[in-house]
Amino acid sequence: MNSFREDGAAALEWVASYLERLRDFPVLAQVEPGDIRAALPVSPPDEPEPFSAVLRDLDAVLLPGMTHSQSPRWFAYFSITGSEPGILAELVIAGLNQLGILWRTSPALQELEEVTLDWLAQLLGLPSGLHGHIEDTASTSTLVSLAAARTARPDRRTVVCSEHVHSSVDKAARLLELELRKVPVDEAFRLRPELLDLHGACAVVATIGTTSSASVDPVSAIADRCETEGVWLHVDAAYAGAAAVCPELRDRFVGWERADSVVVNPHKWLGVPLDCSTLWTRRGEVFRDTFSLVPEYLRVADDVASLTEYTQVLGRRLRALKLWAVLRCYGRTGLQERIREHVRLAALFEEWVRAEPGWEVVAPRHFSLVCFRREGSDEENERLLERVNASGEVFLSHARLGDRYALRLAIGHFRTTEDDVRLAWDVLNREASRL
Amino acid sequence: MNSFREDGAAALEWVASYLERLRDFPVLAQVEPGDIRAALPVSPPDEPEPFSAVLRDLDAVLLPGMTHSQSPRWFAYFSITGSEPGILAELVIAGLNQLGILWRTSPALQELEEVTLDWLAQLLGLPSGLHGHIEDTASTSTLVSLAAARTARPDRRTVVCSEHVHSSVDKAARLLELELRKVPVDEAFRLRPELLDLHGACAVVATIGTTSSASVDPVSAIADRCETEGVWLHVDAAYAGAAAVCPELRDRFVGWERADSVVVNPHKWLGVPLDCSTLWTRRGEVFRDTFSLVPEYLRVADDVASLTEYTQVLGRRLRALKLWAVLRCYGRTGLQERIREHVRLAALFEEWVRAEPGWEVVAPRHFSLVCFRREGSDEENERLLERVNASGEVFLSHARLGDRYALRLAIGHFRTTEDDVRLAWDVLNREASRL
Repeated sequence: MNSFREDGAAALEWVASYLERLRDFPVLAQVEPGDIRAALPVSPPDEPEPFSAVLRDLDAVLLPGMTHSQSPRWFAYFSITGSEPGILAELVIAGLNQLGILWRTSPALQELEEVTLDWLAQLLGLPSGLHGHIEDTASTSTLVSLAAARTARPDRRTVVCSEHVHSSVDKAARLLELELRKVPVDEAFRLRPELLDLHGACAVVATIGTTSSASVDPVSAIADRCETEGVWLHVDAAYAGAAAVCPELRDRFVGWERADSVVVNPHKWLGVPLDCSTLWTRRGEVFRDTFSLVPEYLRVADDVASLTEYTQVLGRRLRALKLWAVLRCYGRTGLQERIREHVRLAALFEEWVRAEPGWEVVAPRHFSLVCFRREGSDEENERLLERVNASGEVFLSHARLGDRYALRLAIGHFRTTEDDVRLAWDVLNREASRL
Repeated sequence: MNSFREDGAAALEWVASYLERLRDFPVLAQVEPGDIRAALPVSPPDEPEPFSAVLRDLDAVLLPGMTHSQSPRWFAYFSITGSEPGILAELVIAGLNQLGILWRTSPALQELEEVTLDWLAQLLGLPSGLHGHIEDTASTSTLVSLAAARTARPDRRTVVCSEHVHSSVDKAARLLELELRKVPVDEAFRLRPELLDLHGACAVVATIGTTSSASVDPVSAIADRCETEGVWLHVDAAYAGAAAVCPELRDRFVGWERADSVVVNPHKWLGVPLDCSTLWTRRGEVFRDTFSLVPEYLRVADDVASLTEYTQVLGRRLRALKLWAVLRCYGRTGLQERIREHVRLAALFEEWVRAEPGWEVVAPRHFSLVCFRREGSDEENERLLERVNASGEVFLSHARLGDRYALRLAIGHFRTTEDDVRLAWDVLNREASRL
């Protein structure tokens, strides 16, 4: 264990130093396709190398090829954070290497996951008594939810959602061979419930916080229709769900308590390192009908359903530990503070955009995402974005809203400060003036 | 960063000490359902707690509820190892928190994954030029492979495999709404190729190292039939694939180089902490047809296909880093040494069983799994297994082979020594004599 302690101290110092240097790196990797590959040997070593060689090559070879989601100046897509307690929990998770395939192969894994999902449901104001478990990403949470919806209504093969639904819904429908019916959105990019046609539908996906603009579908109206017509309601709150820790933001979530399944990604806005997507359902028995399959070699006397029976994948990591560590080390108030600060910074940025001639805000802001654009053509805005990102100073992304190209500034990284947001605005203005 | 360094040092020391104490814990958790849940607070804290509180509760609350896959005396299912370089790589992975959704969000993630998969393919003697990527577990690797097979032959809806195929194939077929046709096995638990009926088949799954007995399907004969009839061949070598690092064991793998897709789990027998399943295909374009879907907000000028386009899930972790660290820190020779030692220990255990009256070996041994039983009824063997596991000294599992209950001793943990295997044999004999 001596070399483990030494190598571990070096790895820990490497990570600590990395986290201190985050503002020193270009946010977007400044390499060409193939550069990193070319810097790596074409074959593995025959003889063992020391762990220090791995750390050395992290700096020498890999870092230049990294785009830094840990940078406080990543504002693209949705910001994510690998928080310090979450990072250290991953070390412990790997050290323990618990294997969740049956309750007995790790009672602690299963029961901690159940308790932690209860905790998070409480923090988010979800109803009590839901069955919760962890998936890798929302792609999987949505896939297994729609599979359960298909089980519940095997006579129906259509999933209904808005035009702005996440692409994972398209992919899930494709894998499950379900038709997708996309409903037009209103001027605020919300599904128009009066256009909801549930004929042949086994499920509706409603989104709280769409990827393009963080718009909020009218979940209550959708839930009414789903209840009347016996259709499964899946709520995708992968990004925005975290905001429900703040009571003053709960008005955006009205109706989600009626969902058959709800997904929130703690690896987005709750400080948990990738990957950790939480899924709750009030119809656990349908998930179990869909996924349970206990082969002979896994049959044991314990009369406890494994979490594995509620999903596609057999082997589970001890992911709950990192969620548990983050919920404890921040506490309710710590998480609320961060969410509020991000919403405040987004509101501030929105004010700057509104106040500055030549810029406009192009979507209502509900959370910490601001959609905006510079006057001029789509092509000019696209060129502006590429210049801003190429600078390496900040990293933003885009969306198409209505018929227009929009820039997106997503705040949500725990280390982001007002100065970082100010820098983004300065870089945008500087590059716009140079175009 | 000071508290991160301090907390990190404590977390590292916790893991180092855990790894030193592995032989002190009962391998199988000695708790009743609900014990761990009852020891945890019903609600999350309002105020932040220090990370030290998490570490304290690891010992006080969670450890008693853990079954230790890191124990050298875990012989159940298949043994797995979170090796030291793999554990430390997980710390770095979490610290970097790279987000693989497009090439540009982490060129290093994508290119390291490609290179590392090439390295491992070389180590295993797989053909060059395969497209490789990492999935979480073999459940997913098999699911996406069968989805690709369905794409390749949309007119056919049957998957053919042996009776001894892993349950993940049953689950994948269910999700994909494909029929499963199970072919009987011979006396060595191998698929009987003369009974292979490929009518309406889009895929055959051949297994090298089945879960129940590590039997080896006749891959070459199956590949001949698949080629003649244009059927996708998926080879499941999740456990045994690692053994192909040893040239003298390659005879078990003849034919796998002709597969359309092959899965090996480095988180099983190659020292990589959960989860890491590697998947290669010579038909990357079919995977891309099946899974590629690039929404507007992910469209960028880079003309590089993301690994995301080859699978269901959008967001990828930097999993390749742990595989890379393990391949480097053990090297080809280090991995060969461990595999050879495990095969030697299994052969030794097999000899002990054969030499001892009242015991018998019930399946041919190809790798490091021994299937055996005590004379007497199935119920007696089942009771014996429960007593052995309840002792906490070692942990084994069972299978049903032919019509008989069999005990399984699976060697594959990097810390297992001959003394540990000897202990298993002593405990088995002691408990058998007490029955």
